[in-house]
Amino acid sequence: MKPLDALGNLLGKEVLVRLKNGMEISGKLKAFDIHINLVLDDAGIKENDVEKKFQTLFLRGDMILYIS
Amino acid sequence: MKPLDALGNLLGKEVLVRLKNGMEISGKLKAFDIHINLVLDDAGIKENDVEKKFQTLFLRGDMILYIS
Amino acid sequence: MKPLDALGNLLGKEVLVRLKNGMEISGKLKAFDIHINLVLDDAGIKENDVEKKFQTLFLRGDMILYIS
Amino acid sequence: MKPLDALGNLLGKEVLVRLKNGMEISGKLKAFDIHINLVLDDAGIKENDVEKKFQTLFLRGDMILYIS
Amino acid sequence: MKPLDALGNLLGKEVLVRLKNGMEISGKLKAFDIHINLVLDDAGIKENDVEKKFQTLFLRGDMILYIS
Amino acid sequence: MKPLDALGNLLGKEVLVRLKNGMEISGKLKAFDIHINLVLDDAGIKENDVEKKFQTLFLRGDMILYIS
Amino acid sequence: MKPLDALGNLLGKEVLVRLKNGMEISGKLKAFDIHINLVLDDAGIKENDVEKKFQTLFLRGDMILYIS
Repeated sequence: MKPLDALGNLLGKEVLVRLKNGMEISGKLKAFDIHINLVLDDAGIKENDVEKKFQTLFLRGDMILYIS
Repeated sequence: MKPLDALGNLLGKEVLVRLKNGMEISGKLKAFDIHINLVLDDAGIKENDVEKKFQTLFLRGDMILYIS
Repeated sequence: MKPLDALGNLLGKEVLVRLKNGMEISGKLKAFDIHINLVLDDAGIKENDVEKKFQTLFLRGDMILYIS
Repeated sequence: MKPLDALGNLLGKEVLVRLKNGMEISGKLKAFDIHINLVLDDAGIKENDVEKKFQTLFLRGDMILYIS
Repeated sequence: MKPLDALGNLLGKEVLVRLKNGMEISGKLKAFDIHINLVLDDAGIKENDVEKKFQTLFLRGDMILYIS
Repeated sequence: MKPLDALGNLLGKEVLVRLKNGMEISGKLKAFDIHINLVLDDAGIKENDVEKKFQTLFLRGDMILYIS
Repeated sequence: MKPLDALGNLLGKEVLVRLKNGMEISGKLKAFDIHINLVLDDAGIKENDVEKKFQTLFLRGDMILYIS
């Protein structure tokens, strides 16, 4: 198994994404590519204890620290 | 579906772009490429509570955090 | 249309370039490449409220935030 | 032997991962690729003396300092 | 014309190079490559109002902001 | 001779690795690749005057400043 | 002439290397590659007015600012 296969297992499921700057984003994983660019549905972004909501979010892979 | 397809679905629509430095840019998505370079029409940039307006804006992809 | 086509439309015209470090450079766009390296004619650089003038300026693309 | 072979020897074993920002992550190494992207099972992340637990963690390779 | 052609026009001429960290280097442009690595003859580096002199200087391209 | 040949000459020998963040790591060089990823045996890491010991250490090449 | 040819002319000679973090390293240039990775013999590193000596030093190219 390769790491991208593990991301494939998360498709359609709720994930938590931690960014390198400490921000945390949750949502349903709809798509990813080899750059770890993600598309999340019904995404919520927590920053300084405030949460913003997005129906669909395209997230650039190079700011991602981990995905769970 | 791949993440770039999700960007394709946003062509011609109003998008919100959040940069890695915290700036936010809104506008109508006119073009994008695999580097996530964007062209926005009627773009507005909010920085320190001041908003600047641009008819057409070429935005470098490597500073983008997310697009919604 | 791709983003680089939008840059092509700006050739020969006055552009405003915003750098990642906040500097702003204006000038007539004479050339660009896929790295977004630019050549500007009659360029002016504003930094800390002082403006420097350059007849021709080669600007490295990786420091560019947006072009308008 | 090449460095990636050494990672191969760690598959299925408990590893300690130190990130460039000082965070430490432990878990069972389930997968890796040439970018040093990792998948860890039963992962624990220690940050500011608080530990978070994750059943499966996808970790981006470019933030890794060392693996032991 | 492409940006690298503009650099070609500067060969053998006195140029001013501004680095991303604010340092300024002047000298006669003797060579360049696609990474914008430069060789300058009779180069002078101004840093904190002190100027150092170098007969020949190899300058790494990735620290360059602009060349004029 | 190329720089990687010099690393080859160090295989099986005790080396000192200085990282970009100032940390110093010593150990026996067991493997390296073109990204300067290293594997060190019996490695010791000095950080803030505390030394940690590792039987085998995989070290990411992009944080390395020099090897001696 | 290309910039790497200028480095070739320095082989076997004493060079001064300035790093992006301000450190200065001197030594006899023994080898280099296209990434500007260097091998220096009888190298001396000046940092905070203290000088360390190394018989042979492998120096990663991406931290180099200039070579003279």
